[in-house]
Amino acid sequence: MLGIKALPREEIEAIFSLAKSFQEISTREVKKVPALRGKTLINLFFENSTRTRTSFELAAKRLSADVVNFSASSSSLAKGETIIDTVKNLEAYHPDIFVIRVGSSAALYALTQHTEASIVNAGDGRNEHPTQALLDMFTVSQQLGSCEKLKVLIVGDILHSRVARSNMFGFRKFASQIILCGPPSLVPFDCAEEGIRVEYDLDAAVESADVIIMLRVQQERQTSAFFPSLREYSKNYALTPRRLARARKDALVLHPGPVNWDVEIHSSLKWRVHPLILKQAENGLAVRMAVLFSVGTKKRTL
Amino acid sequence: MLGIKALPREEIEAIFSLAKSFQEISTREVKKVPALRGKTLINLFFENSTRTRTSFELAAKRLSADVVNFSASSSSLAKGETIIDTVKNLEAYHPDIFVIRVGSSAALYALTQHTEASIVNAGDGRNEHPTQALLDMFTVSQQLGSCEKLKVLIVGDILHSRVARSNMFGFRKFASQIILCGPPSLVPFDCAEEGIRVEYDLDAAVESADVIIMLRVQQERQTSAFFPSLREYSKNYALTPRRLARARKDALVLHPGPVNWDVEIHSSLKWRVHPLILKQAENGLAVRMAVLFSVGTKKRTL
Amino acid sequence: MLGIKALPREEIEAIFSLAKSFQEISTREVKKVPALRGKTLINLFFENSTRTRTSFELAAKRLSADVVNFSASSSSLAKGETIIDTVKNLEAYHPDIFVIRVGSSAALYALTQHTEASIVNAGDGRNEHPTQALLDMFTVSQQLGSCEKLKVLIVGDILHSRVARSNMFGFRKFASQIILCGPPSLVPFDCAEEGIRVEYDLDAAVESADVIIMLRVQQERQTSAFFPSLREYSKNYALTPRRLARARKDALVLHPGPVNWDVEIHSSLKWRVHPLILKQAENGLAVRMAVLFSVGTKKRTL
Repeated sequence: MLGIKALPREEIEAIFSLAKSFQEISTREVKKVPALRGKTLINLFFENSTRTRTSFELAAKRLSADVVNFSASSSSLAKGETIIDTVKNLEAYHPDIFVIRVGSSAALYALTQHTEASIVNAGDGRNEHPTQALLDMFTVSQQLGSCEKLKVLIVGDILHSRVARSNMFGFRKFASQIILCGPPSLVPFDCAEEGIRVEYDLDAAVESADVIIMLRVQQERQTSAFFPSLREYSKNYALTPRRLARARKDALVLHPGPVNWDVEIHSSLKWRVHPLILKQAENGLAVRMAVLFSVGTKKRTL
Repeated sequence: MLGIKALPREEIEAIFSLAKSFQEISTREVKKVPALRGKTLINLFFENSTRTRTSFELAAKRLSADVVNFSASSSSLAKGETIIDTVKNLEAYHPDIFVIRVGSSAALYALTQHTEASIVNAGDGRNEHPTQALLDMFTVSQQLGSCEKLKVLIVGDILHSRVARSNMFGFRKFASQIILCGPPSLVPFDCAEEGIRVEYDLDAAVESADVIIMLRVQQERQTSAFFPSLREYSKNYALTPRRLARARKDALVLHPGPVNWDVEIHSSLKWRVHPLILKQAENGLAVRMAVLFSVGTKKRTL
Repeated sequence: MLGIKALPREEIEAIFSLAKSFQEISTREVKKVPALRGKTLINLFFENSTRTRTSFELAAKRLSADVVNFSASSSSLAKGETIIDTVKNLEAYHPDIFVIRVGSSAALYALTQHTEASIVNAGDGRNEHPTQALLDMFTVSQQLGSCEKLKVLIVGDILHSRVARSNMFGFRKFASQIILCGPPSLVPFDCAEEGIRVEYDLDAAVESADVIIMLRVQQERQTSAFFPSLREYSKNYALTPRRLARARKDALVLHPGPVNWDVEIHSSLKWRVHPLILKQAENGLAVRMAVLFSVGTKKRTL
């Protein structure tokens, strides 16, 4: 499996320490190091995501790699080519790194069998989104000193969220406790296992949290049985000033972005929470530079 | 405001003198200078424009900058993200220059408040398109020696044209006189102010002009009340051989391109007018290199 | 005409010998040589093709050229600009190489009259696709030592295939014999001329072939009179284990990709034929590097 689940804690810490040194590059006059000069990265997105792709593209360019964007919707996939044939064909060009977003972890795993290149998982269905969790954890450890023994509350559509899953795997490696909160249809009770608690009442759940991760609501899911009404969702699970007042003063609020203001987070909290959310995006670039650097020289997967 | 209106004449002249030196780079064997090496330019187009984007992209690459194209239609804007949140997120990557096309000048102005990067206006609604005017004026000054004290006739849909506005601001800084010509529905009489004359009869208007700027007809506007009939528009406001014969022999004919032949300009004039229109495109690259170079090292807006 | 037809045999051999030396670059740690540094390549695709464009893009980047992708559908062509005006406008930027895919050879030929840049034909309607044939022939000569005096069987929709045409021109320059096979509606009898034989029975046709080129079925043509039924096509013209057993043991099977498995080639043959088809893609990159290198320094067309 590609993701945080299989990543040893020491490697997470190594990525953080690399990311720390890469953070500085993006503030230089010359925002570029020759670390991956002459390496080829292919951004292979079978599902659209301008933001994640752009972040990887910039990370690669700041390391001097050559980047080719291959959006599968515009390719011959429309002509009936399989995902594996697409990768095999691109493999013929001897890329060094594939950054892949694909609809299922089975598909992603299959792809790893057909390439000598390193693969970075940019989201595999509902399974994992490891660089998002790494940037969340990196942000937390920059703010609080470490990810160790924290109470991490994750709020929203846990059932469908690869961001939630990757963060759950990640924070637990640092002996942090996870509290999951959301409507029962989206937070199955059987999520609860060692290190994970389920809580349906957000007012209660925020109280002890060191970190509050608000998940993005995929509005396209509203029509399904999971989301009977957006208004009711927000009433019960949006972060409001009243709810945030119940939390610890120094609690961190994260969101993978882009925020649907007034759906996940009340817009009157923007001044309070947006700076850290933007810091997440900034850290995302440094974390992705670190990941690309560490997979760019020998075959590895993440 | 970002645009020619706020740009001092001396800065326009400084851009022209830079552009002159950059013209030569594009004719070299090695069409590249390291002027912006390690700088990041984000082409952020909330409205589609392959031509303008390509021109900026190439200008940046010839200065060795890293370029990322961010087309907002394919991004999470579709997911309801605001324009400002998009810029704030990209700002987290510490770009040096944003080249932005957006639907209104209010939106563009708002964006300037959320970035440390330089911003180049690539078209803000009906307001301005400064690099287009700069390349028009640069072309004129290369052909006629200067933009000083000329009679500049602008023909077409003045009401909706950012190209017309930017040129009006620009040429007047050089004591040139502007004559606006087009159907009354598209050339409001109250345009007339110091240095601007309105004329509804193109036959008369061409007679004294040193420079004739033919605006592009946005054919998608035909259905509105402004454009009752394309044929009637052309009959009255297309540049025809008969009309051009009334003009001064050395009158320059410009067009921002692409020309709708037989709509704005009679196709039998192509041999006469197209070379200079293509020269405009060529000069556009040099002018954009000059603009990017001058904003690429410290925060500025244009 | 741009294509293999007009390319002397000596130049084909020169490209092969360049391609051989470029093959090695893509397996290096640093996959990049400065051969075309400071040169500009414009990928100008009036018809969509992610695969061919990506191959040219990577080839150019490995030679250190600057690449701009200009997809004509997203450009102002939608606004009624002609193909020639588009090229003239891009010509103003002094590119060194245009890689062009366009719907007809007349259009491509016309474009050559309006640029000082080298032009590489990436497919001109039904006429030619020269780099595809070069990579096919390069693959054959790497496998069999040369393209000399072979029997080359081409199977499928010959009538509409630029791949077939370019290969026919190419292999005949090396005194190879061409056998065309497919349904009579797609393989006109009058194709037969010196060095070309038409054969409607695939079982018979495979027997003596040294090289079997399976063409891709354009499924969008099924609705036309040419393709009454895909099932019937496959029954008669797909490569099956039984048919391949009739061929010489060392016969090479090529396909321009992507394969519609079970339409052109039975999927149970994948293990046997896919490795060489992927080798074609790999060779395609080296051949395109060779072509770009040889046209990148002085004006030439292919």
